[in-house]
Amino acid sequence: MKLDVNAQGVYPIAPTPFHPDGRIDEDSIDRLCEAYIAAGATGATVLGIMGEAPKLEPAESLAVATRFIEKLGDLPVIVGVSAPGFAAMRSLAHTVMERGAAGVMIAPVPSLRTDDQITGYYRQAIEAIGPDIPFVIQDYPLTLTVQMTPKVIRSIVQEHPSCVMLKHEDWPGLEKISALRGFEADGSMRPISILTGNGGLFLDFEMERGADGAMTGYAYPEMLIGVVSLQKAGRRDEAHDLFDAHLPLLRYEQQQGVGLAVRKYVLMKRGLIASDAQRKPGAALSAAARGEVDYLMGRLAKREAELGLGGRIVAAA
Amino acid sequence: MKLDVNAQGVYPIAPTPFHPDGRIDEDSIDRLCEAYIAAGATGATVLGIMGEAPKLEPAESLAVATRFIEKLGDLPVIVGVSAPGFAAMRSLAHTVMERGAAGVMIAPVPSLRTDDQITGYYRQAIEAIGPDIPFVIQDYPLTLTVQMTPKVIRSIVQEHPSCVMLKHEDWPGLEKISALRGFEADGSMRPISILTGNGGLFLDFEMERGADGAMTGYAYPEMLIGVVSLQKAGRRDEAHDLFDAHLPLLRYEQQQGVGLAVRKYVLMKRGLIASDAQRKPGAALSAAARGEVDYLMGRLAKREAELGLGGRIVAAA
Amino acid sequence: MKLDVNAQGVYPIAPTPFHPDGRIDEDSIDRLCEAYIAAGATGATVLGIMGEAPKLEPAESLAVATRFIEKLGDLPVIVGVSAPGFAAMRSLAHTVMERGAAGVMIAPVPSLRTDDQITGYYRQAIEAIGPDIPFVIQDYPLTLTVQMTPKVIRSIVQEHPSCVMLKHEDWPGLEKISALRGFEADGSMRPISILTGNGGLFLDFEMERGADGAMTGYAYPEMLIGVVSLQKAGRRDEAHDLFDAHLPLLRYEQQQGVGLAVRKYVLMKRGLIASDAQRKPGAALSAAARGEVDYLMGRLAKREAELGLGGRIVAAA
Amino acid sequence: MKLDVNAQGVYPIAPTPFHPDGRIDEDSIDRLCEAYIAAGATGATVLGIMGEAPKLEPAESLAVATRFIEKLGDLPVIVGVSAPGFAAMRSLAHTVMERGAAGVMIAPVPSLRTDDQITGYYRQAIEAIGPDIPFVIQDYPLTLTVQMTPKVIRSIVQEHPSCVMLKHEDWPGLEKISALRGFEADGSMRPISILTGNGGLFLDFEMERGADGAMTGYAYPEMLIGVVSLQKAGRRDEAHDLFDAHLPLLRYEQQQGVGLAVRKYVLMKRGLIASDAQRKPGAALSAAARGEVDYLMGRLAKREAELGLGGRIVAAA
Repeated sequence: MKLDVNAQGVYPIAPTPFHPDGRIDEDSIDRLCEAYIAAGATGATVLGIMGEAPKLEPAESLAVATRFIEKLGDLPVIVGVSAPGFAAMRSLAHTVMERGAAGVMIAPVPSLRTDDQITGYYRQAIEAIGPDIPFVIQDYPLTLTVQMTPKVIRSIVQEHPSCVMLKHEDWPGLEKISALRGFEADGSMRPISILTGNGGLFLDFEMERGADGAMTGYAYPEMLIGVVSLQKAGRRDEAHDLFDAHLPLLRYEQQQGVGLAVRKYVLMKRGLIASDAQRKPGAALSAAARGEVDYLMGRLAKREAELGLGGRIVAAA
Repeated sequence: MKLDVNAQGVYPIAPTPFHPDGRIDEDSIDRLCEAYIAAGATGATVLGIMGEAPKLEPAESLAVATRFIEKLGDLPVIVGVSAPGFAAMRSLAHTVMERGAAGVMIAPVPSLRTDDQITGYYRQAIEAIGPDIPFVIQDYPLTLTVQMTPKVIRSIVQEHPSCVMLKHEDWPGLEKISALRGFEADGSMRPISILTGNGGLFLDFEMERGADGAMTGYAYPEMLIGVVSLQKAGRRDEAHDLFDAHLPLLRYEQQQGVGLAVRKYVLMKRGLIASDAQRKPGAALSAAARGEVDYLMGRLAKREAELGLGGRIVAAA
Repeated sequence: MKLDVNAQGVYPIAPTPFHPDGRIDEDSIDRLCEAYIAAGATGATVLGIMGEAPKLEPAESLAVATRFIEKLGDLPVIVGVSAPGFAAMRSLAHTVMERGAAGVMIAPVPSLRTDDQITGYYRQAIEAIGPDIPFVIQDYPLTLTVQMTPKVIRSIVQEHPSCVMLKHEDWPGLEKISALRGFEADGSMRPISILTGNGGLFLDFEMERGADGAMTGYAYPEMLIGVVSLQKAGRRDEAHDLFDAHLPLLRYEQQQGVGLAVRKYVLMKRGLIASDAQRKPGAALSAAARGEVDYLMGRLAKREAELGLGGRIVAAA
Repeated sequence: MKLDVNAQGVYPIAPTPFHPDGRIDEDSIDRLCEAYIAAGATGATVLGIMGEAPKLEPAESLAVATRFIEKLGDLPVIVGVSAPGFAAMRSLAHTVMERGAAGVMIAPVPSLRTDDQITGYYRQAIEAIGPDIPFVIQDYPLTLTVQMTPKVIRSIVQEHPSCVMLKHEDWPGLEKISALRGFEADGSMRPISILTGNGGLFLDFEMERGADGAMTGYAYPEMLIGVVSLQKAGRRDEAHDLFDAHLPLLRYEQQQGVGLAVRKYVLMKRGLIASDAQRKPGAALSAAARGEVDYLMGRLAKREAELGLGGRIVAAA
């Protein structure tokens, strides 16, 4: 089951769980997968930036991806294959596809600047992995420092039939979604799936601009799923109510450098992973920060109770 | 009345209001000043990045600063004097102090990288403006690309007695406030005032970490004033309630590049300035974005009503 | 006499001479102008990056430009008008044109990244200064961090009839010259003048790729003039002999940050300016560095004698 | 035989030779090794930036390093182990040391900015590889964007006894060598070996400032060896004569992005490698560029003949 342009819904970005001594924690992978399935996720993405992919050795990367693929069963898994060189990218892409991945995600290398450099990079990447593997463009300027205009994205989409999705995490990025959907409307770009990232910080409006869903790692994926469902059902105010209830914590998670520490801490407190350990280099939460997250989680529970949300998935039937 | 290390409260960052044809709108300056005074602001900051300072000619900069100083009466005014060269910085700093400014704010030039380069830059800047003008360090890595560690800030503070305040807008920055307050506690740095910026996105917790107040341009300064007052009065939950009510809009304002357009649009809708015009280069809001802001303002009014806040200043007596 | 697309030859980038106390040294401006005329320069460029333009107050900038324009008489003077805002750019551009400048030079602001941002910036700049002032694109990625592809330059040229020249200082940049001349050959871009900068480090081959001359501040402008003349006369080996004789010193000058200190020191030793003082921030030469420059100047004199060049201008018959 | 602080002489940075189809060319590795030995190199460095290390798969990296180690016999080999994550760095470092490497070279990751971030990174790296492997700091701001002050280098040296060498390629960097040697003289830093890179562009003066030799990939390593030997023998003018003869070509090689293409082309023309192929992404030389290199090689041969150098090693006995 390969990824295609009709993909929608929520693909949580999965963290890579570690034991406190740095070993990969397979049991927590399993628990995460169960939670994603239970929450109603459409798929999942592994070995992304938040998955600490560059800290893994090649064999570990493969083992992590494989375990997620197995445990997620029917759910499509997208694997990040970004690498400093194309040899490693090709090798990882082919192996994970053989193991059952639905597609791969490719981020540009940070040194790219001009439009031509960016389209040239994707040309070489697709030459390396071949034209048959569905791929996702990761557009994340804040971290990657590469700025892709809508026109550049259109060029990549039109040049490569195997491009099926944009992971949109430009900031600000609402107008970019509108521009791309405009290209589709005027016939200058074939339709693709757009899932949004950036921690979910603008998910409420991204859905209204035409996104198909979310691909991000917020520690309460059921909120992402709820907002996406409610917006698709046209229940705008409810979608914003749910989103706003989570925004104080979501905003707290959205801190460059310590965001993953917050996320793993919340997932650990929620029982989804056993430890919030990161491999080095990685920021640890101070006692004060842990107290702040505890406080926000308490307020979230209270606010959800007020709204009658109860911390569970919002069915949008 | 010069700025000193005891400064606290809220210093809104004032936008520079323009007529649609690009001329400076003095009447709107007056109206902004009245609103700041009515809201209970402690002072104000003009000619900052959000004040479109680089788009003004020197005579205009001086005229804008002077008008704010006059109209704000007893309230201390801080004037941004950041400039590519020290000659212009010295000239502007001296003139505005003669006209009644309380102090000046200096941002590092974007090319600085190492700790020594940063401390060296402030050394030359203070040599240029002289040791008698109270100054504020602007620490805004997201826009300025200069990263100052707590130790670097301490060096600048200890070297220059005229350094009285840090405009803190690192992101993430909570641990930085704790580190600086720790330096004061262990005696390695004399106490200074810390006002936080970054659009207010973490103001709720910044106050708990030891900030003295806020210096930022969120279009509802009364919220900033309310949160600062409530936190100082130890009314934590109420502070967060007020903050959270505004967070969806505040988050929307916090978009690099279009943030000022959102801010001016809200200020215009609130009647604080006559036009949301910016000088070029400047991003305009799309119709979709205006609709989103309208929607958020509507939800804010409703939420404030629910909380019994009524859109007015929260007295923390 | 306005600058047009037929401009060629050598336009030295003039430093701004200061007295040791930081005042502008008008006498040295006069001496520089005499030397440029005597050496056979075609024109000159003032208030560039090497002219310490950002360290001047507006009135000083105007005074410096005006004096150069007066003293250079019939020689066309290009004035750098790059500024953080368009108000200052427009104001300076109009005033210097009234005083007799031949054209202006505009560098992009360092924050520009995508092709559209760059062309958009020039659109706004030309809207600000008006369509009647001949302008030069400054393409200097090493310092400005903005990367313009040949296609972007072509877009700017085609959109703005008042664009008459490219100051080419990309590094590496030889293929860029070939690409632009190729655009002219295939009819997709109207012809413009291309003068090369980058300290002259590739002038020998830039002329062979189709450059029209040089616009840079190497402290022996007669070498630049000689190489340009010899190459135009088809005397390739002699051009390289002359160039290679200067390369050890030219290479030494080409050090980011201290290059201007080297250049001013050499100009002072040659008697072209009275002092090598820079305004702050500015790097000073260590005693060791001065010794190295002295040594290189000695070797240059010896090598020129060997080649029978005698330190004077090479007439290209 | 492990690398220690007494290392001196020339360690060419070895390219990784490929067949035109992208396979590694082991025969050319052997030929390069023979040439380095014949030229009098002291050692060699492999898997550096110029060695296209990020384009190799892990098994290939190991194979390349191992072959160089075997073929260079008694000559010490330094292996670049820079990696996005510490797991891969530790794994490669340990394996190559077991296979006979003399030490490893570690470059900082490009995201580091403050002094504390840089020293913290090396702390984590050494924790990962352990305290027993001699390591080289690579200080290459132009490519890596990380700026290390002399004080930061001193901190790393003092904290880690296994730090034995600095690969110095700051630009400009002459004062940095003087500063570090000054630290040794005043007793604040223990002595280390300093070999200089940056293509050799300032090797002539770097030796005079106190460098112990060169570690760079200029395609005529015998020139580097000659200049180092002559300078050590106090034959300054001869060292500069030799250096200046090569400077036109060396300068041409020193072009970011295409430099490796020039270098491989020259090595191929000299018969040291069979093909100038690079793995993607990699810039190819245009016909014009190849013609320019041919011309410069011709001029070099002529100039060496004039100077009686004959293209061979200059014995400094």
